[in-house]
Amino acid sequence: MDSERFKNLMCGPVVVVFTPFDNEGISINERELRKNVRYMIDNGIQNYSGVLIPGGSVGDSFVLSLKERKRLFKIVVEEAKGEVPVVCGVNHTSTNITIELSKFAEEIGVDGVMATPPFYYKTISDEAIYEHYKAISEQINLGIMLYNNTAMLDNDLSIDLLLRLSKLKNVLAIKESTPNRIKYKKVIETLGDRIAVINGAGEDTEPDSYKMGTKGFITAYGNFVPGLCVEIHKEALNNNYQKVEQIIKRFNPLKDIIYRYVNDVGPEQVGRIYKEIAISLGFKLGGTRLPIISIPQYYKEKIKEAVEKNGFLEYVNNTR
Amino acid sequence: MDSERFKNLMCGPVVVVFTPFDNEGISINERELRKNVRYMIDNGIQNYSGVLIPGGSVGDSFVLSLKERKRLFKIVVEEAKGEVPVVCGVNHTSTNITIELSKFAEEIGVDGVMATPPFYYKTISDEAIYEHYKAISEQINLGIMLYNNTAMLDNDLSIDLLLRLSKLKNVLAIKESTPNRIKYKKVIETLGDRIAVINGAGEDTEPDSYKMGTKGFITAYGNFVPGLCVEIHKEALNNNYQKVEQIIKRFNPLKDIIYRYVNDVGPEQVGRIYKEIAISLGFKLGGTRLPIISIPQYYKEKIKEAVEKNGFLEYVNNTR
Amino acid sequence: MDSERFKNLMCGPVVVVFTPFDNEGISINERELRKNVRYMIDNGIQNYSGVLIPGGSVGDSFVLSLKERKRLFKIVVEEAKGEVPVVCGVNHTSTNITIELSKFAEEIGVDGVMATPPFYYKTISDEAIYEHYKAISEQINLGIMLYNNTAMLDNDLSIDLLLRLSKLKNVLAIKESTPNRIKYKKVIETLGDRIAVINGAGEDTEPDSYKMGTKGFITAYGNFVPGLCVEIHKEALNNNYQKVEQIIKRFNPLKDIIYRYVNDVGPEQVGRIYKEIAISLGFKLGGTRLPIISIPQYYKEKIKEAVEKNGFLEYVNNTR
Amino acid sequence: MDSERFKNLMCGPVVVVFTPFDNEGISINERELRKNVRYMIDNGIQNYSGVLIPGGSVGDSFVLSLKERKRLFKIVVEEAKGEVPVVCGVNHTSTNITIELSKFAEEIGVDGVMATPPFYYKTISDEAIYEHYKAISEQINLGIMLYNNTAMLDNDLSIDLLLRLSKLKNVLAIKESTPNRIKYKKVIETLGDRIAVINGAGEDTEPDSYKMGTKGFITAYGNFVPGLCVEIHKEALNNNYQKVEQIIKRFNPLKDIIYRYVNDVGPEQVGRIYKEIAISLGFKLGGTRLPIISIPQYYKEKIKEAVEKNGFLEYVNNTR
Repeated sequence: MDSERFKNLMCGPVVVVFTPFDNEGISINERELRKNVRYMIDNGIQNYSGVLIPGGSVGDSFVLSLKERKRLFKIVVEEAKGEVPVVCGVNHTSTNITIELSKFAEEIGVDGVMATPPFYYKTISDEAIYEHYKAISEQINLGIMLYNNTAMLDNDLSIDLLLRLSKLKNVLAIKESTPNRIKYKKVIETLGDRIAVINGAGEDTEPDSYKMGTKGFITAYGNFVPGLCVEIHKEALNNNYQKVEQIIKRFNPLKDIIYRYVNDVGPEQVGRIYKEIAISLGFKLGGTRLPIISIPQYYKEKIKEAVEKNGFLEYVNNTR
Repeated sequence: MDSERFKNLMCGPVVVVFTPFDNEGISINERELRKNVRYMIDNGIQNYSGVLIPGGSVGDSFVLSLKERKRLFKIVVEEAKGEVPVVCGVNHTSTNITIELSKFAEEIGVDGVMATPPFYYKTISDEAIYEHYKAISEQINLGIMLYNNTAMLDNDLSIDLLLRLSKLKNVLAIKESTPNRIKYKKVIETLGDRIAVINGAGEDTEPDSYKMGTKGFITAYGNFVPGLCVEIHKEALNNNYQKVEQIIKRFNPLKDIIYRYVNDVGPEQVGRIYKEIAISLGFKLGGTRLPIISIPQYYKEKIKEAVEKNGFLEYVNNTR
Repeated sequence: MDSERFKNLMCGPVVVVFTPFDNEGISINERELRKNVRYMIDNGIQNYSGVLIPGGSVGDSFVLSLKERKRLFKIVVEEAKGEVPVVCGVNHTSTNITIELSKFAEEIGVDGVMATPPFYYKTISDEAIYEHYKAISEQINLGIMLYNNTAMLDNDLSIDLLLRLSKLKNVLAIKESTPNRIKYKKVIETLGDRIAVINGAGEDTEPDSYKMGTKGFITAYGNFVPGLCVEIHKEALNNNYQKVEQIIKRFNPLKDIIYRYVNDVGPEQVGRIYKEIAISLGFKLGGTRLPIISIPQYYKEKIKEAVEKNGFLEYVNNTR
Repeated sequence: MDSERFKNLMCGPVVVVFTPFDNEGISINERELRKNVRYMIDNGIQNYSGVLIPGGSVGDSFVLSLKERKRLFKIVVEEAKGEVPVVCGVNHTSTNITIELSKFAEEIGVDGVMATPPFYYKTISDEAIYEHYKAISEQINLGIMLYNNTAMLDNDLSIDLLLRLSKLKNVLAIKESTPNRIKYKKVIETLGDRIAVINGAGEDTEPDSYKMGTKGFITAYGNFVPGLCVEIHKEALNNNYQKVEQIIKRFNPLKDIIYRYVNDVGPEQVGRIYKEIAISLGFKLGGTRLPIISIPQYYKEKIKEAVEKNGFLEYVNNTR
């Protein structure tokens, strides 16, 4: 593995790829998945201006069987054809199974894996976290993206721990989702030279984190407005921050709906409301699997209104 | 399924059964597992005075593959021979997989299943929790034990939600681990007539929760001092609370060691320190699997001292 | 000061005395205050079966000037006439001012003082807490009741700290309000021999904490149904726990209203909803002072209904 | 009051002024206080490039009597002579007393007051917070600076509440200390046009919050290196962000010491460690008052080393 290359690839919109199901949520709709991957690449999510992450949380990984997770990786990597880096989500409660997924990913030729700490309990010791990543690191020859996910764990990975982890041979990136602004800044300052720091707190915190030295940002929007996400990245790199603000402003009505739904129902439903937006734009993402539940009609209508008003419907109609 | 019978069986020490590994932690030591189940039954963990739970958190379920979890259920149920109720731990992030495990458990003839809410995020909506248990309930004809686990989830399942859940046809018991004394009392008062309430906050809270109306208590100690745990139950039922206090006092030196280790390292290591106690008493529980790590020598020595002083070593030598 | 006597006096219903205002909340209604103190004594809140606490949180201490707090102590102690122990609430952000209040209390002949740790920040170091109580202890010759108040501070005072504090010469009691059942039990076990442990988690946790060794319980109900509170204590001492449960059941409709109001509005309003109940029973407690706000009509009506149904209105009409 | 003028004045380093005591911490050292105010003005903390806040948390307000707090305001305003805006810290548990302090401040001619919500409990209802500020607003004709202090209260004042508050006639500024980067951005976006947003999360978050539209930053460093703080402001306004980073880098060794001390001991001691730095630079700030405790020798030495190395000692020697 070429570490430098991997690190440089980790930039731009890092899209957590939706997993489309059939209408009953029983099987993966592979055809739609391929179509979606192609759509993103065709609209700019490409090497050095974007990354695809199959098997992330917003990608429903926690309701997939291991077999399905592997199948998902396979399809995305096949369809990516080396035109865009693929980093597979390999979160699991068990280090062994995380490694099993990682090795499979390596075999089929992906670029890297992304993993949270093992997450069964709300808190987990630094030592266990370290050993977890160390074991993965020793078993694969791929780039590893750490994932600090404060929605899953009370452990907001400390700077000291991150430093230790960043010395593992193939830890080359971090998705940093901390809501804490002091911590985020510290991550950039301390680790920014060694590994790629990807902002995981949402487009709301752009272009501010680009100003600090962020290389890219995690996004679910990239699934349906990939071009806009690439634009955010390019304008940010060129210091056209006002332009970035303008683009992000178009996301606001949807952000409000997402925020309200997650607040009214629960954080675990966040992936579904994103998917519902895509569905309203014509994507065939299908039904849900428990514990993910259907979105009430009220929210579907709010979404419909919003995507008409902010031009996303038109955008998708023109590009897909 | 005979609901009344299941409910009545849910009492006494409810032992979260250790999963013995080989020395490298690679495979389950089935011979030792059978021996341990037999040991517990022979020492009083029997129908109407105890329950066995394979596949719980302290049983390392989160580092087992699905195949191993099923194998574990099979061995325990075979060895139990109907002499003790078997309730299988079927926690998973995915409702489908929880159901898959539950159906398997039903096929091989266990008495019930125990499940936490789906646990990927720290918080999960009441609606998703309800739908999760409802789906399990519809797919199996076994008793279901709810598990309110505040170490895994910020959701301390509310009385209202528990009431709703208790109306599902085969929800017949709850392992209530809330540390909150007002909540615990409310659970007994509100649900005690409908379902069996099992105290999940540890022996420290006995005999107090028996005084309130608890039917039994979750225990890891039952793996190595089953007779003492049965005695706690019997004395509590006979209102010999001073006797109960006396027995529990013998656990204190070990409790202190466990508390300190979990505090020093992390809550996810709790099962290992229990296992280490059993190892010091001659049980062959083998190595660890990440994210579970080895116990330092210091703690091993502390444990050795403690089990000699409190007579547990002698107890096991005499009974096993 | 006679330490043994003070410790023995700390038992039964420990009533946080309401501070009656005029209708605009401008000045203390001293006449009503005297009447209320007399009412409680006449109905059994007396030496060895109750305690009065002027200046507690439910007594609006945080909206009183220091002059008013002192005046309050003076009136209560005058009216108590040695028939009931008086323990003054002396919470403050400043240790000096806590001591000023404590010395004043000593001069006018009260029995003791009750103090939380200094409370400006949500968290405060153990060292600062220890020095705070030590300084108070050195300056007065009165009994001191510690107050572990987890609604004010994130510090749930640890067993180690409480042990250290209990060695200060006149620390003789604790109001323990932790919601944690393991902690509460530990407090009784570790400190119960040295100091009087008063249950501060509400009548909901009775008779359970009496069963564990509690000496008394904090109550706001004692202001308006003093006799019932004394009865709870006496029946608990005689192990008539079913009788205790019966009495407490009468409180339930009011508890539900209080719970809902505090949940809907905020914890700082808890004193007001208690006062409103007393007002509906004929007590002249007057208006509010910010940040305490008026109770909406809806809740007033709910209260009115409840006190008619559970017989509290009749109780007060017959006894006052 | 000229609202526009007040709003424009709220910018630059907003210094929380130390309260110097005599060596025993018994009385305020007025001479030193005057000298320090003069020192800051002479070094650039002046109208439109700084603000003085007497009576803040770092200014020991919570251990002062009301009389002392007033005296403090008086001295600072006298010494300020209109050359720098003075905004008085008027936090209290009681709205009445906050108003009493605010009216006094108005009488003696200060520019504004800064107040947290009333803070007795960890949480307080939005309604009570609103009524608190409304009452203050109605009673004085001065600028009001809201203070969102998440170290004192679990209430991280919501955008909705802040919007409502910003419509009160003289609410013209906010000290926003939220650690949350999404919230902070939202505050700037939503309120930045109406009121002055002052960054309260520390110099660590500069120049980032200036980039977002912040007008100034709260600082304790301003007490001893006022010129450097003014420089941060001026360079930030001129977009010389690298220069800002350079200056802040000089603070880092001290920041580490402060962080470690607060972490080792407790958050309530934060003011003392800042004072200790000033003492090591020759300021006569005197002793402590409980619950503030003395700093151990170890930390004093660490501070001494740091201020020699980073040039602060030289700076003060040259400017004072």
